[in-house]
Amino acid sequence: MSDESLQLIPARQGVAVELNSGDVVRVLNTHGSQVIDAWAFNAALPAEFMSMEHTRGVLYRLSPRVGDSLYSNRRRPILTLVEDTSPGGHDTLIAACDAKRYRLLGCDHHHDNCAENLARALAGLGVPVPHTPAPLNLFMNIPVAADGTLSSQPPLSKPGDHVALRAEMACIVVFSACPQDMVPINGVGCVPTEAHYRVLRAG
Amino acid sequence: MSDESLQLIPARQGVAVELNSGDVVRVLNTHGSQVIDAWAFNAALPAEFMSMEHTRGVLYRLSPRVGDSLYSNRRRPILTLVEDTSPGGHDTLIAACDAKRYRLLGCDHHHDNCAENLARALAGLGVPVPHTPAPLNLFMNIPVAADGTLSSQPPLSKPGDHVALRAEMACIVVFSACPQDMVPINGVGCVPTEAHYRVLRAG
Repeated sequence: MSDESLQLIPARQGVAVELNSGDVVRVLNTHGSQVIDAWAFNAALPAEFMSMEHTRGVLYRLSPRVGDSLYSNRRRPILTLVEDTSPGGHDTLIAACDAKRYRLLGCDHHHDNCAENLARALAGLGVPVPHTPAPLNLFMNIPVAADGTLSSQPPLSKPGDHVALRAEMACIVVFSACPQDMVPINGVGCVPTEAHYRVLRAG
Repeated sequence: MSDESLQLIPARQGVAVELNSGDVVRVLNTHGSQVIDAWAFNAALPAEFMSMEHTRGVLYRLSPRVGDSLYSNRRRPILTLVEDTSPGGHDTLIAACDAKRYRLLGCDHHHDNCAENLARALAGLGVPVPHTPAPLNLFMNIPVAADGTLSSQPPLSKPGDHVALRAEMACIVVFSACPQDMVPINGVGCVPTEAHYRVLRAG
């Protein structure tokens, strides 16, 4: 593998990363409590995308563990979780935040949001998406009670924790540093921060 | 409300039902252990559809209870669960079955599946869908263990159990009587059966 330089995921913004099969992208929770929404699309056919409902239906687990693949809506592995220094439990249940989410929380002006970050990152590569697939919410902490009740809690990760995802096909991965600052999903201080990533190229 | 006549959901097949806002559709688990995959689309704009990840993000529950609405990908109520005589716990986690699912299970010929049932039911109304949204899997029993492990179990419903869904906007609802006969999600006998529905028109 050849390591590329460390790249920024600016606070409240998204980035697109093009991977070939076998490449690995390591995502650093630089400041420790930043949720990173993640998506993946087949580079050759973006109508094939990483799907949380298909992944759960293969893994029979709410959240992937190291060694588990993430599956596309065509039931093919698209990414594999190959490293995770965090306590895990990455959320697969909750939709990306969008402009409407913040309006419903009482925000009366435009608010940065993960759905627009995804659309903008893909548009930068000339790839339109007709809808926002459910994201893999890295580091997001949504405990599930025995009765199926969910709660929204600050991340359990610490500064420098990271996950690494290996591409199982040529794909476009998008990461959005979630701009949620109205509920404490990015830490009790409600301060979204930057994060970083590094690509390790195969071969 | 005015009751329309009882309608068949043929075993292994799907039906589309057009509802106006306020109409109610009651779905009967006629023989007791049939899973019914359900979808809803805004009749005026099918790009707005019932979304499990948005619904979980509003309800903060894995499964809706009587009185809960189901939300669209635009965060608007599209249906409300108004009656449920079953033990509940309707699954929101698992993707619809499709041809690939059965191939992966070892089926070497075409197998009926819920994704095609959805596409065919909508095509009958001239409505194309670019992808298969995650369904609300009525009566489907996917217990979640404390560690997040899922299991696939026969339904807990009994013959004649029913749910009723009220339309919160003009919408197209599709029900598919799941043709899964290779794992016991439709009962220990692995025999998919017919089900029924009845529309109660508002006003």
